[in-house]
Amino acid sequence: MALVVQKYGGTSVGDIERIKNVARRVAKTYDAGNQLVVVLSAMSGETNKLVAFANEICEFPDTREYDVLVSSGEQVTVALLAMCLKSMGYKAKSYLGHQVPIVTDSAFSKARIEKISEKNMRQDLADGTIIVAAGFQGVDRTGNITTLGRGGSDTSAVALAAALKADVCEIYTDVDGVYTTDPNICEGARKIDRISYDEMLELASLGAKVLQIRSVQFAKKFNVNVHVRSSFNDNKGTLVTKEDSEMESILVSGITYAKDETKIAVMRVPDKPGIAARLLSPLSEANISVDMIVQNVSEDGYTDFTFTVSKADFKKALLITREAAEEINAKDVLTDESISKVSIVGLGMRSHAGVATKMFDTLAHEGINIQMISTSEIKISVVIDAKYTELAVRVLHNAFGLSNKDVQPE
Amino acid sequence: MALVVQKYGGTSVGDIERIKNVARRVAKTYDAGNQLVVVLSAMSGETNKLVAFANEICEFPDTREYDVLVSSGEQVTVALLAMCLKSMGYKAKSYLGHQVPIVTDSAFSKARIEKISEKNMRQDLADGTIIVAAGFQGVDRTGNITTLGRGGSDTSAVALAAALKADVCEIYTDVDGVYTTDPNICEGARKIDRISYDEMLELASLGAKVLQIRSVQFAKKFNVNVHVRSSFNDNKGTLVTKEDSEMESILVSGITYAKDETKIAVMRVPDKPGIAARLLSPLSEANISVDMIVQNVSEDGYTDFTFTVSKADFKKALLITREAAEEINAKDVLTDESISKVSIVGLGMRSHAGVATKMFDTLAHEGINIQMISTSEIKISVVIDAKYTELAVRVLHNAFGLSNKDVQPE
Repeated sequence: MALVVQKYGGTSVGDIERIKNVARRVAKTYDAGNQLVVVLSAMSGETNKLVAFANEICEFPDTREYDVLVSSGEQVTVALLAMCLKSMGYKAKSYLGHQVPIVTDSAFSKARIEKISEKNMRQDLADGTIIVAAGFQGVDRTGNITTLGRGGSDTSAVALAAALKADVCEIYTDVDGVYTTDPNICEGARKIDRISYDEMLELASLGAKVLQIRSVQFAKKFNVNVHVRSSFNDNKGTLVTKEDSEMESILVSGITYAKDETKIAVMRVPDKPGIAARLLSPLSEANISVDMIVQNVSEDGYTDFTFTVSKADFKKALLITREAAEEINAKDVLTDESISKVSIVGLGMRSHAGVATKMFDTLAHEGINIQMISTSEIKISVVIDAKYTELAVRVLHNAFGLSNKDVQPE
Repeated sequence: MALVVQKYGGTSVGDIERIKNVARRVAKTYDAGNQLVVVLSAMSGETNKLVAFANEICEFPDTREYDVLVSSGEQVTVALLAMCLKSMGYKAKSYLGHQVPIVTDSAFSKARIEKISEKNMRQDLADGTIIVAAGFQGVDRTGNITTLGRGGSDTSAVALAAALKADVCEIYTDVDGVYTTDPNICEGARKIDRISYDEMLELASLGAKVLQIRSVQFAKKFNVNVHVRSSFNDNKGTLVTKEDSEMESILVSGITYAKDETKIAVMRVPDKPGIAARLLSPLSEANISVDMIVQNVSEDGYTDFTFTVSKADFKKALLITREAAEEINAKDVLTDESISKVSIVGLGMRSHAGVATKMFDTLAHEGINIQMISTSEIKISVVIDAKYTELAVRVLHNAFGLSNKDVQPE
C-alpha cells in the first residue's frame, strides 16, 4: 500500500463534469489499494474573477483581505470533489488550509509554508478516508488566512507529500508532462521521461510553467518524487526526481524561452567601485527583481551597464533607473522592450565542454545576434531580439538532438 | 458612543457598486462615533450558484461538504468590503466564522450557535477597527465548518449583537421593513413601525422572509432590539422589540403565506397508540422538519394521517414515509405539491374571540376550501390550494382592515 498525493490544477476541475472525472481517477487510485491525499486548485477562471473583483474595489487591495478573497476558490472545488466521492460510496473529507493546518508566515499573497501538522490527516488516512485538501492556502500563527502565490497549489501538494512522506506526488495538469521545449512552437518537442530537480528548477524558473518553482525547491529539499502528468489520459508523464548517472549522460534536457522581460542599458557609467550597487539597490528597495546583469569592459574609465527586468516592472524600473543614472552622471539610459531570453538546460553540461560554443554557433549560423549571456552550472541563457525566439528554439532543439531520443550528439 | 451591529443581505452586496455603497453607509455610521460590527451575506445569486453545483454533483450532497461549499460565498463579500473600507482609510478586518469563533453544534447546514467568543472582536473594536464578519457560518468544536441554514446571516448578526451587548442590530434588506403582508400581491400592504418578538416569530416562520426565524428567537431571548430597514434609502424601518400595551390593541398585525410546503397524506393507518411516532420519528431522525400535522377522526379502527414538509425535504420525506407506511400496513401515501399556507398573526387575538370565524368566513365567501388548520395563541394558519394564495391574502388583508391603519375593526 502506497501513500499517493495527487494534485489537480484549475483546468482539471474547471467544471462539474471534469470534477466527476477527477473523482473517477481518484477512486481508481484508491481502489488499487493506496492511501490518498488529493490537492485541488480553484476552477480555472475563478481566481481571475475574484482578482478582478478586488481590482474593481480599489487599485491596491489590502493583502490580508486579498488572501481571504482568493482562497474561497479552492474551498469550492474541495467541497465538490469530497461530495462527489462520498456520493460514489467512498469515505472522503475536505481539508481547508487552516484545518490541516498548513502553517505559513504572514507574508500575505506570497506566504511560505513553515509547518504542516500531519496528525489529523494521519488519523483520517488510517481510517480509509480520502483527504481532499485545498491547495494554495494556509493559515498564519494568529489564524489569518494566507495564500502561497500563483500556482501555489503545486507547492501545497509537494509540501503535503513531504510532511506525510508520501511515495509519490502526482501533479495532474493539461499537458502530458515536461517537454524538451514548447510543443506550440517546435514540432519535434518531446516529452521528457525523467528529469532531475535541478534541471526542473531551471526549466521552471525559465518559463516552462508546468510546475511552480517553489514546489520543485520543496521536492528537492525533502526528496519528494514528483510525477507530472495529464488529467485527461493515462499516459506516463515526467518524473522529477533525484539525479542519477543516466540523467547525467544527457547533454541538454530542454530548451526554454521567456518573452516577458525587458532590457535597460545605462550608458557611459563612470567605472568606479560601488556603481553597480548604486544602480541596483534602489530597484531592490522597490521590490523589483533584476534577472540578467551584464557590465561591459571598461574604456576610458567608463562602462555600460545592462540588465533585464520583467515587463510588469518595466515602467517603475525605468523611472528609478533614470533617477539613479542621473545621480551617477551616466550619459544615457536606453531600453529595449522586444527582447526574449532563450535557455538550454542540462546536467550533462557540467562534464561536457563545448555546449556553449555549439549554442552560439547555431544561433550565429541563423544570423541571430546575442545581446546578453548568462550561465549557471547546468544552463546557458542568451537574450536575443524577440522576433527570433521561435527560430532560435527550433534550431537549438534540433542542434542538440532533442527531437529524436536515440540520436544525442555529444 | 454606541455599539452597532449592521447586517447586509445578498442583494445589498450583489455587485461591486453595491458593496461600495455599503462601505459608504458603514463609514457614515462609524464617523458618527459608533463602534461597528458589519455582518454580510453572500452576493445574491452566489449561494444559488453553489447549491446548483452541489446538485449537479449528486442528488443528496453530503452536508459537511455542503457547508464548506456554500460558506465560501460570505468569504468573498467580507474580504471585498474590508478591502474597500481600508482603501477609504478606515481600519477594517474581515472575520470568518472560525475566526470569531462562532461555535455551533455539528448539525451541518442547520447548525445552532452554542457560543460566541467576543475576545478577539473586543480588542479590534477598542482599537477603532470596523469588524466585517461573515454571516451564515460557524465552526463546530472539532473545527468543521458549519452553516446556520438559509437566511442564517440574520441569526449571526443578532447573535453577535447579543454576545457584544450591542445597542441595536440593524438588518439591512431590499425592503423598507416588515409589511402587513406581501406588497407584491396586495396593494394595500403597509409597513409596520413596531412589532413584538412573538408576532415577528410567527410572521417569520410563516414566510415573511424578512428575518430568519431563529434570529428573532435569539433577539427575544437576549432582548436585542432589531431594526429592519432598507439599504437603498434612509427611511425608518420596523423595530422588532419587547411587547408593549400599544401593540396588544392591534387584532391582526400581518398576513403571511408560504408556498414552499408540500402535503403528504398516509391513508388508512391502523389507529393504535404509537402510530404517529412510528411515522414521524424516521423523519426527525433524517432531520426533516414536519410543519402542520392533522389526524382524522378514526373510523373502523383506521385513520388518515396528514402532514406538511418543505419542498426541499419533499423527495426524501416521501421515500421515508413510504417505507414507514408499509411497515405499519397503511393503505396508501398520497401527496399534494401545489398547496400553500396562509396565516394571520396578531397579539390581539389572545383577548378577542371570533378572529378564526372571521377568517374562515372570509375564505368561504370566496369559495376557497380549507384543507388543514393549525392555530397558536397569536396566529391561525390554513392550508389551501396554491392557486388561491394571492386571493386569500388580499381578502383577509381587507377583512382585518390592515390597509388603513386608523380603521381596525374589532
